[in-house]
Amino acid sequence: MYELGVVHRNIQRTEAAIADALGKFGSATVHEAMGRVGLMATYMRPIYAGAQVSGTAVTVLLHPGDNWMMHVVAEQIRPGDIVVAAITAPCTDGYFGDLLATSFKARGARALVIDAGVRDVKTLTEMQFPVWSKAISSKGTIKATIGSVNVPVVCADALVHPGDVIVADDDGVVCVPRAMAQRTLDAAAAREANEGEKRQKLASGVLGLDMYKMREPLEKAGLRYID
Amino acid sequence: MYELGVVHRNIQRTEAAIADALGKFGSATVHEAMGRVGLMATYMRPIYAGAQVSGTAVTVLLHPGDNWMMHVVAEQIRPGDIVVAAITAPCTDGYFGDLLATSFKARGARALVIDAGVRDVKTLTEMQFPVWSKAISSKGTIKATIGSVNVPVVCADALVHPGDVIVADDDGVVCVPRAMAQRTLDAAAAREANEGEKRQKLASGVLGLDMYKMREPLEKAGLRYID
Amino acid sequence: MYELGVVHRNIQRTEAAIADALGKFGSATVHEAMGRVGLMATYMRPIYAGAQVSGTAVTVLLHPGDNWMMHVVAEQIRPGDIVVAAITAPCTDGYFGDLLATSFKARGARALVIDAGVRDVKTLTEMQFPVWSKAISSKGTIKATIGSVNVPVVCADALVHPGDVIVADDDGVVCVPRAMAQRTLDAAAAREANEGEKRQKLASGVLGLDMYKMREPLEKAGLRYID
Amino acid sequence: MYELGVVHRNIQRTEAAIADALGKFGSATVHEAMGRVGLMATYMRPIYAGAQVSGTAVTVLLHPGDNWMMHVVAEQIRPGDIVVAAITAPCTDGYFGDLLATSFKARGARALVIDAGVRDVKTLTEMQFPVWSKAISSKGTIKATIGSVNVPVVCADALVHPGDVIVADDDGVVCVPRAMAQRTLDAAAAREANEGEKRQKLASGVLGLDMYKMREPLEKAGLRYID
Amino acid sequence: MYELGVVHRNIQRTEAAIADALGKFGSATVHEAMGRVGLMATYMRPIYAGAQVSGTAVTVLLHPGDNWMMHVVAEQIRPGDIVVAAITAPCTDGYFGDLLATSFKARGARALVIDAGVRDVKTLTEMQFPVWSKAISSKGTIKATIGSVNVPVVCADALVHPGDVIVADDDGVVCVPRAMAQRTLDAAAAREANEGEKRQKLASGVLGLDMYKMREPLEKAGLRYID
Amino acid sequence: MYELGVVHRNIQRTEAAIADALGKFGSATVHEAMGRVGLMATYMRPIYAGAQVSGTAVTVLLHPGDNWMMHVVAEQIRPGDIVVAAITAPCTDGYFGDLLATSFKARGARALVIDAGVRDVKTLTEMQFPVWSKAISSKGTIKATIGSVNVPVVCADALVHPGDVIVADDDGVVCVPRAMAQRTLDAAAAREANEGEKRQKLASGVLGLDMYKMREPLEKAGLRYID
Repeated sequence: MYELGVVHRNIQRTEAAIADALGKFGSATVHEAMGRVGLMATYMRPIYAGAQVSGTAVTVLLHPGDNWMMHVVAEQIRPGDIVVAAITAPCTDGYFGDLLATSFKARGARALVIDAGVRDVKTLTEMQFPVWSKAISSKGTIKATIGSVNVPVVCADALVHPGDVIVADDDGVVCVPRAMAQRTLDAAAAREANEGEKRQKLASGVLGLDMYKMREPLEKAGLRYID
Repeated sequence: MYELGVVHRNIQRTEAAIADALGKFGSATVHEAMGRVGLMATYMRPIYAGAQVSGTAVTVLLHPGDNWMMHVVAEQIRPGDIVVAAITAPCTDGYFGDLLATSFKARGARALVIDAGVRDVKTLTEMQFPVWSKAISSKGTIKATIGSVNVPVVCADALVHPGDVIVADDDGVVCVPRAMAQRTLDAAAAREANEGEKRQKLASGVLGLDMYKMREPLEKAGLRYID
Repeated sequence: MYELGVVHRNIQRTEAAIADALGKFGSATVHEAMGRVGLMATYMRPIYAGAQVSGTAVTVLLHPGDNWMMHVVAEQIRPGDIVVAAITAPCTDGYFGDLLATSFKARGARALVIDAGVRDVKTLTEMQFPVWSKAISSKGTIKATIGSVNVPVVCADALVHPGDVIVADDDGVVCVPRAMAQRTLDAAAAREANEGEKRQKLASGVLGLDMYKMREPLEKAGLRYID
Repeated sequence: MYELGVVHRNIQRTEAAIADALGKFGSATVHEAMGRVGLMATYMRPIYAGAQVSGTAVTVLLHPGDNWMMHVVAEQIRPGDIVVAAITAPCTDGYFGDLLATSFKARGARALVIDAGVRDVKTLTEMQFPVWSKAISSKGTIKATIGSVNVPVVCADALVHPGDVIVADDDGVVCVPRAMAQRTLDAAAAREANEGEKRQKLASGVLGLDMYKMREPLEKAGLRYID
Repeated sequence: MYELGVVHRNIQRTEAAIADALGKFGSATVHEAMGRVGLMATYMRPIYAGAQVSGTAVTVLLHPGDNWMMHVVAEQIRPGDIVVAAITAPCTDGYFGDLLATSFKARGARALVIDAGVRDVKTLTEMQFPVWSKAISSKGTIKATIGSVNVPVVCADALVHPGDVIVADDDGVVCVPRAMAQRTLDAAAAREANEGEKRQKLASGVLGLDMYKMREPLEKAGLRYID
Repeated sequence: MYELGVVHRNIQRTEAAIADALGKFGSATVHEAMGRVGLMATYMRPIYAGAQVSGTAVTVLLHPGDNWMMHVVAEQIRPGDIVVAAITAPCTDGYFGDLLATSFKARGARALVIDAGVRDVKTLTEMQFPVWSKAISSKGTIKATIGSVNVPVVCADALVHPGDVIVADDDGVVCVPRAMAQRTLDAAAAREANEGEKRQKLASGVLGLDMYKMREPLEKAGLRYID
């Protein structure tokens, strides 16, 4: 790890069917299904509302104010991938705009997740190329220092290995390690199986207190009602 | 105050007609009418633009990362209420999602105001169930520790008693104490009475300097014009 | 500088044709064309998405929680201006709402850029009067202390002189000094001249690595590929 | 509540013996003894390390950038009091310096707790007049708008009534409501009673796992050891 | 302004006697004497307590993560100067450590004021070379892009021209423009002239309410006392 | 990775001689020697100034507001270790106080690095048990949910594996992966070898411009001097 100046060309991607299936559940369900780990910091926000995607991670490690490696990672993108960009120190510069988005899209990328800034958000919205970022910034970057592609990275508090599954929507971004992907998918499916029934009950006025049988444990925990 | 493990079932709600009428003025006018107090911190943002609501507060005090009491407060909701959720320490976890929203809505709640995170925002937006929160987060919560319902709470810098009026819109969230509700309503109405006329004058090019007769006090305060 | 209590009535505005032309390029291109300076802090966000404007700056320096000078600056607005409001200490209060917007618009202002809060954002959105601000807040302000109009100000990290050009869009806000406006316009035009061609190439799958001939310098910098 | 322009001269202070005794336990123990409520935000920091005080609260509500009421509250201070200053909107200005500290000290105040800024910290340190504040700032304030003295205030997330007990040290600031003071004192004393013995055991190498008999509940919760 | 790649060798420094005299008053008094402008953001903190300095500004504009120009500015330092370092985008990297401090000190610099990070703070403290900074960070910087020396810069919200006076102490950092230096010094001296007498009165228990004759204006403003 | 409910008892620690030797260089030199990676966020601050330590990491993953696993990790500490505590979501609660410090110290721990809060800082300072933390907070924690010990964790933006070397001082905290420890030590030693000579030169007035032969590259980069 911390290999600088290295591009790994061969990575083991999570099976596409699994990566795609995870996306349908959304980040909240997937995060629960994982045991409540793997979530990126809540400052990671989508540049427009409504996008919900999943894909396999290709990672890139960049230096503050330097987006040179974005062009290097572009070559490593395969259809179905999501680029995850980490920076070696906090930075809000706009590393990514409409030209790079055009290139990423042409390579088959589904989204960008970047722990820094992005620009040309109006055009990116028109292109419907979703980005989750820490900031929106007009500030451009230089191309002076090399970083790495497809090494493990820490992006917005989450550890991401190349080939992991990224699930992102309006609620945030989750990373599912490749080795946990199948089992997380199963757990997510199990969670959702009876959600429809629950929703119907709650909509009819049944209380969670009764549906989940919470009255007794609450009383045991000492809850008192006062009239 | 600071009663832990207590649910007050009988609270004195502000009269519905007053609570409803306050909502029409919006948070900025109501906040002015109160003498510029009672405003929640500006980090409280709506999950979607355009919602404008008012209602009577039912309050819930929760612990960080624990949403057990959300189910307890659900039972205390009456039509026209807004749930105000405070946490005993800073937390951005997603305490509330589409299932709880379904339940709250079925009970007659008009909105949730929470000094923490919320999730399933896409679904909440489709349901048109408005939420004002500090964060959006996929992170779920546990159900291990009891808090309280319908005790006074500090939510995002504002003190809220059960039965107070909450007014929330794109500009923010204001709490009007029950004892001040009628007088605040009167003051708000008085404020707005001549706004239409003012707006027309300003639109026609009349300056606030003249309309509000500010030139003399400004000169007295020492303002100098330089050509 | 730091003249308090002064209103400069005669300022040298950048030529309207130049100010207007700069707006078409957007803040990111203009910022690059300036050599990556002049950008306001990324916390300056538009109250609604999609606005893209440029204009000549009239500046106002206000005190925390006091918007008296907003009425003074209104008189100095000419068609094509953008008001740039700076505060002498950090403040999130709502200095500006629909009445002032009506007045500013009637005077010909195109936008407000304020390093503080704004309110009535729903109405401002309906009026399509764009504002870039640090916060949205219902909190009103008093009218007790005089500041200055059309003095140099520091607004959200950027130095703005009256008559400079402001370019603002979804990516942020840039200030172009009057003396640099023509040359920045030329540089921006040059930058964009061949963007269309580049975009087409990238869309067809050509990599930036090849288009920008980066492979050799990357290799020289030590980049290694591992299979 | 939210009375503006009011000074309450007669408040019910917690008994001095209780207020003093609570201070000896420090904020962490007192906070635990209260059931983990009443703590101010962690951004409240002492201007110098090592101070540990308690006292009865006299409260003051001020407006952003305006310290007029600091002179009003000074008259209401009695020996053993701690002044708790809240602001109606976020502000970092320096409301308090060496002259006011001289006055407060002469009146018998033990400390200032302020949800804003303070200045002259070098002199205050030499005077050994402790202050817990959100910021340190040279910025002075005006005297234009009246607030209130001895009304309930929200200070750094905590609700403080006049006469409550404030306990402050390097770990933070806690407010103990008057009605809970005796029982909190008892609980704090009970907590500390066997701390010495525990400390000795732990120092000798006994593990908390054994001392608190945690091994069984941890195993029940599913904890697995892997060699 | 915004000249990039330029070093101004000849700047007009404020007279040394004035710069030195201002330092004796400290940042709070000087800031008041200026009319409450010119203060840097409160996030600018000294790396150790107790330092109080003043001097003439030599300025340097750097790029994020790049400290090359620190070596360029070193040559422009004259005895009695304070280096003011601004960055073109937010950055917390450690631009400055013990080697540069040794060089700056040898050139006669009294302090560094930097809107970014600093490192080797233990050694700097031992050397008693004071630094006011936004952050402390081990992160080093590269030397790839040129900036400017002795151009006007915006540092932590304050506009600083080369030759201005910097006054820094535990309360913060103020910049006094050269043209205002003499008059600010006079105003500061006037402010302090009768502070000793005031302090003595307050120490003896006289209230500010009486000393400043505030009772009448407070009553006029509507302040009411309740027993 | 992300094993929840697991305690790894056998970890491969970096050789003690290497871990100890790295500490002598301090975090800035070590961070440079690693190629400028591995640094924790700058919000991680020591609770008292002057501590400089290194040691082998034992890691613990905790839930927000829950310090149960702190007792579990205590048993895994061996002399020379530093405990690195990560939380699954942002939290400022005080997870650690004087009792746990007594236990950790008895087990041979040299320090705690925690991405959350700590309390009893006065006692910890007297004990000279150093802690680097995100916050200081009186707020206690519960013991309800199990996490993990000696799994890889993300702590304050840095990835830490059990057995890695932690170097911490007033400048911050760096994690050196076990596999890089020897080579980082060599690089750090090489960096410092000629620092003494450099320091002497700079102290005598030689400029970095000359010592590092920067004049020519600066000129090539376009730097212009103006008299």
